[in-house]
Parts: sequence; C-alpha cells; structure tokens
Amino acid sequence: MESLMNAAEEQQPPSALADPWSLKPESSKNQKPKGVGGFVLVHAGAGYHSESKAKEYKHVCKRACQRAVDRLKAGALAVEAVAAALVELEDSPFTNAGMGSNLNLSGEIECDASIMDGKSLHFGAVGAISGIKNPVLVANRLLSEAQKGKLSAGRIPPCFLVGRGAHDWAVGHGIPPCPSEKMATKFSLSAYKRNKRKMELAEKMETGHKQAKKRRQSSENENGSGCLDTVGAIVVDLEGNVAAAVSSGGLAMKHAGRVGQAAHYGCGCWAENACNMNPYSTAVSTSGCGEHLIRTMLARECSAAVQSEDAHQALLEAMQNKFISSPFLVGEDRVLGGVIVLRCCRCVEAQPSKHIQGILVEFLWSHTTESMCVGYMSAQDSKAKTHISRLPPGTVAGQCLAIEGGVCRLTGTVE
Amino acid sequence: MESLMNAAEEQQPPSALADPWSLKPESSKNQKPKGVGGFVLVHAGAGYHSESKAKEYKHVCKRACQRAVDRLKAGALAVEAVAAALVELEDSPFTNAGMGSNLNLSGEIECDASIMDGKSLHFGAVGAISGIKNPVLVANRLLSEAQKGKLSAGRIPPCFLVGRGAHDWAVGHGIPPCPSEKMATKFSLSAYKRNKRKMELAEKMETGHKQAKKRRQSSENENGSGCLDTVGAIVVDLEGNVAAAVSSGGLAMKHAGRVGQAAHYGCGCWAENACNMNPYSTAVSTSGCGEHLIRTMLARECSAAVQSEDAHQALLEAMQNKFISSPFLVGEDRVLGGVIVLRCCRCVEAQPSKHIQGILVEFLWSHTTESMCVGYMSAQDSKAKTHISRLPPGTVAGQCLAIEGGVCRLTGTVE
Repeated sequence: MESLMNAAEEQQPPSALADPWSLKPESSKNQKPKGVGGFVLVHAGAGYHSESKAKEYKHVCKRACQRAVDRLKAGALAVEAVAAALVELEDSPFTNAGMGSNLNLSGEIECDASIMDGKSLHFGAVGAISGIKNPVLVANRLLSEAQKGKLSAGRIPPCFLVGRGAHDWAVGHGIPPCPSEKMATKFSLSAYKRNKRKMELAEKMETGHKQAKKRRQSSENENGSGCLDTVGAIVVDLEGNVAAAVSSGGLAMKHAGRVGQAAHYGCGCWAENACNMNPYSTAVSTSGCGEHLIRTMLARECSAAVQSEDAHQALLEAMQNKFISSPFLVGEDRVLGGVIVLRCCRCVEAQPSKHIQGILVEFLWSHTTESMCVGYMSAQDSKAKTHISRLPPGTVAGQCLAIEGGVCRLTGTVE
Repeated sequence: MESLMNAAEEQQPPSALADPWSLKPESSKNQKPKGVGGFVLVHAGAGYHSESKAKEYKHVCKRACQRAVDRLKAGALAVEAVAAALVELEDSPFTNAGMGSNLNLSGEIECDASIMDGKSLHFGAVGAISGIKNPVLVANRLLSEAQKGKLSAGRIPPCFLVGRGAHDWAVGHGIPPCPSEKMATKFSLSAYKRNKRKMELAEKMETGHKQAKKRRQSSENENGSGCLDTVGAIVVDLEGNVAAAVSSGGLAMKHAGRVGQAAHYGCGCWAENACNMNPYSTAVSTSGCGEHLIRTMLARECSAAVQSEDAHQALLEAMQNKFISSPFLVGEDRVLGGVIVLRCCRCVEAQPSKHIQGILVEFLWSHTTESMCVGYMSAQDSKAKTHISRLPPGTVAGQCLAIEGGVCRLTGTVE
C-alpha cells in the first residue's frame, strides 16, 4: 500500500523546484560551485504522533533545519551541519533522544547515536551511553579523531564506544557530563511508571492464566508504537558532500545495555559521496524498531537501492522487499520503521552560458509506522517546511507503507 | 599477490573429496539426508603466529573442531555445534577471546562475541562484556531467546547487549559470572605491562620531539599484529543449515568500552541458508583489526561474493577490492584481517539409483595478516586437520593476501 502525495513538491517554492529529467547530470569535479549553502532533511521519528503533539514535533524539526542551514551558510561541511541539526533534535524534551529519552527497565537513560561522513566514509558511534546531553557530539568526535590517524604506539582509534567507557572517553575529550536526572523529563518519568505498571499487569495476567509459555504471542499489540521516536538528519552541502546522523533513547523498558540501530553501522544512518561505482551521493537516516532495522541493515540497503534510475520506485521496493517482507524478519507480524533518504548529483543548466551550476537533490521519506514527522529546508529557503506523514486510512501499521518526497535544486556560480 | 596451495585438498581423505563440477546441485527440500553429521572450519585468528606457539594454536583448533563434530554426531544443528567450537576456542589461554583475552587501557578484560543462525537468520551479540568466561554463550542465548518471540507487554527482545547490562542479563539467564582476575593469564598480564611501557615510551618520545601533532604518523609500524587473534568458527550440518560465530578480547590497549567487529552485525560473522535469491548456503567468520572489518562489513561482503560461480576467484576479488583497496579504508596503509568462508549446496550422485545424497562443501580462508591458523573436520573424518597459512615470503602484511581452501562432500542416505 502506498500513499504518494508529493506533499513536498506542492509546498516547494518555485525557485527551488526542478524537473530532474530536464537537467543533465555532470560529474566533473573541477567545476565546484562558489559560495555556501546546501539542503537538510530531518525526522523526529517514525512512530505515532498525536495531533495534540504535532505542533511540538514540527517546531523542533523546523529549529533543527534552521540550525543546519545556519551552519551551511557559515561555510560548514555537511557533517558539521548534520551534527548541529541533531543537537537541536536531542535537546527537545519531546523527542526520544538526548533530553527526555525513554527510560530503560532499570529506570535509567542510555542513548545510542551515530554519524557518517559521505566524503571520508568515516563513521562514529556510541551505544548505551549515560550522562551525556548530546550523544551525537561524542559520535562526531569519534569520527573526527579517527580521521586524524593512529594513536600513540600505532594503536588504531576506535569508531564505536559503549557504556561507561564511552562516557569517560567523551569527558576526557572535553565533552561535559550531564547528571542523568537532568536528562529525564516529567513526561519520560511518567511514561516509565505507566509502562512499568502495564508490564507488571501483563506478567501477572500471564502467570494467572498459567500461560507462561504462550505469553509472548498474547501481547503483541500492547506496545505502543509511540515510543519509537528516534531522531535523525541528512544533509548535502554545496560541494556535494553528504552526511547522515541518528540518535535515540531506544525502546521504552529495554534491558540495560541494549543497543539499537542508532549505534549500528549500516543500520541507523548511511552517507556515501558519489564515486566511480555510484553515480549519486546518498544519505539515509532511519527510525523505528531497532532490532528490525539492525537485522535488515535498512540504512545501507536504502542507500544502495536509490542508486537506480527511479529513486521513488527503488525506495518503495526496498521498503517492501528488504523491510516489510524481508527474509530476515520472517515471523514478525508488524515490521515498524521509517527512513529519510536523499540522493543528489551535479547538474548544469540547459543554457550553460549562464555559468550557473547546481546540485539536484531528490529527497524522500517512507515509513511503516502510523506516522513520521519530517522537516526540510534548503539554504535558499527563508524557513523550513514540516510535515507529519501518515499511513493512508484503513491500512495496518507494520504491514503497509507511506512514501512521499520532493526535489530541489541548489545553485552556485561556477568558478 | 596470492598463494594458492589448496593444502586442504592435499590432506583430505579421498572419500571426502569431490570435484564440484561433476555433481549436480539439487534444491529439492523434500529429500533430506538421513543420519547426522556435518562439517566445521575454525580459526584461531589472523595475526602473527610464531613457530614456537604454532603447536598450541593448532591444538586448540583441533579440539574445537572435535567439539563441534561431537555435537553434530549427537544430532545438534549447526548453530549449537558452532557455539560448542567457540567455547573451546575461548577457553584456551593462548587465544585472544574469553580466557586470556587482551587487557584494555584500564587493565580490564572486555569481550565481544556474536553468533548467526543461517536457518532462522537470527543474530545475537554482546559487546564490551566483562566477567563472563564464555561471551559466545551469552550471544547464543540472546539469539535463542529472540527466536521465542516477544517479551511481556509486547516488548521486542534485544539482539545486542553491551557492558554491565549484558553481564547482568547473562547472569539473570543462568550463565555463571567469572571473576575478571581469573580470566587474565600470566601471558596477558605481562603483555599488558609490556604494551603499557611501550605506549608510555612512545608518548614520551613524541612529546620530547615536540611532534605531538605528527605523532600519529610516526608510529604506524609499532603495533604488533600478533595481538589480533580473535577466534571463530563456521559449520554446516547434514540438513544443510549453516551457522557462524566469532569471539574476541579486542585490540590490546583499546579504550574501555571499545567494541570491535566481533559484536557487529555483518562484520564479525555471517550465515545465510540457501533461498530463492541465493543458490548457496554461506557462512563467514572474520578476524583482524576490528575497525577495518566494521567499516568494510567484511563478513557480509564475503558471503555475498561467494554466491557467484567461482568461489575462490570471488573471495580473492572481495578481499582485494572490498578490503585491501576498499574505498572505505582510503588512507589506511595496512589493512589487516582474515576470513574463513564456506558455501554449500545439495547435490546428487551421477547415478541416483544408489539413493545417496550429499552436500557439497567448498571452504576457503584468506588473510592479509602475516599468518592465520585454521582447523577443519567433517563428521566422516577421524580427526581434524590444522594449518597455519602464511603470506608468501617477501610480501607485505596489510597490502597482500593469501588464499587457500578445499572441498568436501557430506553424504547421507535419502529418506
């Protein structure tokens, strides 16, 4: 089931719109556009966004887009801009990342985050980290430290740190610790209490009915998908570099030490600049049930898929065949997740005499959850656009999908 | 550079040898062979194995093969047999896994392990776990718990746990804790002291020369590749199911909380039964520098590669193009790692009247490290064969590779 609204195109200002097939892709690396700019697409999670909270989610997406664009306008590369967007998303108490993250079974906050730079193909990730306000900044620091080369005595720098060790490394690298109690919000604490009661009740009922062995099948619909609101962002800068990042507090009532897709290479985010093998630069960030996203490696699969001619059709097929109907998830009745994807290529105007060169950006989002909140903005726009995408009425979350997107052209003068 | 010895074929008893092209692959699932049996291939790491220790490494590989074969003969499926092999490898004080693991920068042992079942495609992993003698058993338990379906209140069971949370989950599931001091050996403790001195000296020298900024380039050859001896195993049972596992103490002097490829989906091990998309069942286990193996997703890449006609050529190309010359490792002067790979398909004799059906197993190992220690055995063999593969003389570790392998046929009577 597919809902093709192309809401983005409807809202896009005419100046930023372009028909992809009227432009010639141009791979020349010597013609770099002057000036600064770029495009950002963010998500505040695939899950369930009630109408009552829609405004807050849209608002934080808008701020995150603005932050990334501010960095791009200041000349930052894609990887810096994507980190800036994530900080804003993590800082919102409404999202399940950084401040206000879900509490785990032990009542603690443990976060996952990762970032990937499409230019260097470096990757940094933290898993089950506590007491750090912005986990994405630790992931980003791991990435930038690894780019510096080997440590003393020829040791290879880590790309993935977890738990206490990750926390201590962060503090040792100048990232300030944050008391865990400051990261919990009224909302996350009351959700924890509610979930705990629900769990205890479910376990009591199952024991009462002496159906301990069958309990696992009986309760499949009790987990609200509202708890899946991981956040993420993808960016392309005016040099054509892409970057992606993702951050999550993880599933509510997860076991301590559980690491989800947000810290997992190829699963939470992916970014790859165009190269000999790939005509397009691609960036992906995912959200949803971490175990499903890990076992399907959804970020990398979507990135590979949209190298084919029709990005929309390719993503639709990837979500259907590599996620909902994935052989890796046989037996799962509801496969919950969402992705934001962009791909871009350099292009020149039909009249090259104008010396104007641009980057054609195609962007998409798709989800099997009831809703997904996204925001996007190019450096040419005065403000971000936001949208809550919903499954078509009557369709079943975890078995059907929605897919939407748009296209935008970034322009610069050829040097 | 390639060294093709096919040492395995030379040593293989004639009964277990077969020319792959004289046998017809047969995908009929109704003709399952009777009886029990299978094949196992293990490694005690890609790194540097001195002649003096060669005997010990071969000995532990032999015991690990025997353990897996014992389980297969008792009717166990591939995933159980592969776990049994790993326990033996972890228990050896000579390998860098379980007992005798490398100590990290803080002088502690933190282990990574994972296991994948090609039949169910389920995966279990632990990262940076302390105080558990056999990390692979925790990974295996995560896998088997996840196969049971959802937890109470519809919660999705974890596939990846790290640190203290992983330890507590293991103990809560009946896996006994082991005091960390019992897991360190005289050898690992003296190696820690030696490495620490070396590191301090290197840092002092770098400070002395006021080349702090350049230090990272200066010391690239100081890290002995002898510290990379992660262990792993791959198994096929007589039903044609494959499984793979890997376990590691990680790089010597790693930062606390660092997680390497052994806990990373698609990077440490991979197993996938044949299906509509894939004519062969494949299993892979890797060893070497975790960061290189993560960023290249080497296990999954090798598994995908050997679906093509010539497994040997495909693995050679994968090691060359997706590892040594990987675009993900540009700037790395020495790319260190090794893999063991098997692929198999069902086949029938040229004279089907005999009602004998078999599984054709092609197995390979390849490494860019100076050496790699492997062992292999089929349930029809009286004992395991072991071998230390070395790079050809004059070649440079991290830039060249060795590749070897063999073929064996498992037979059973058709029901």
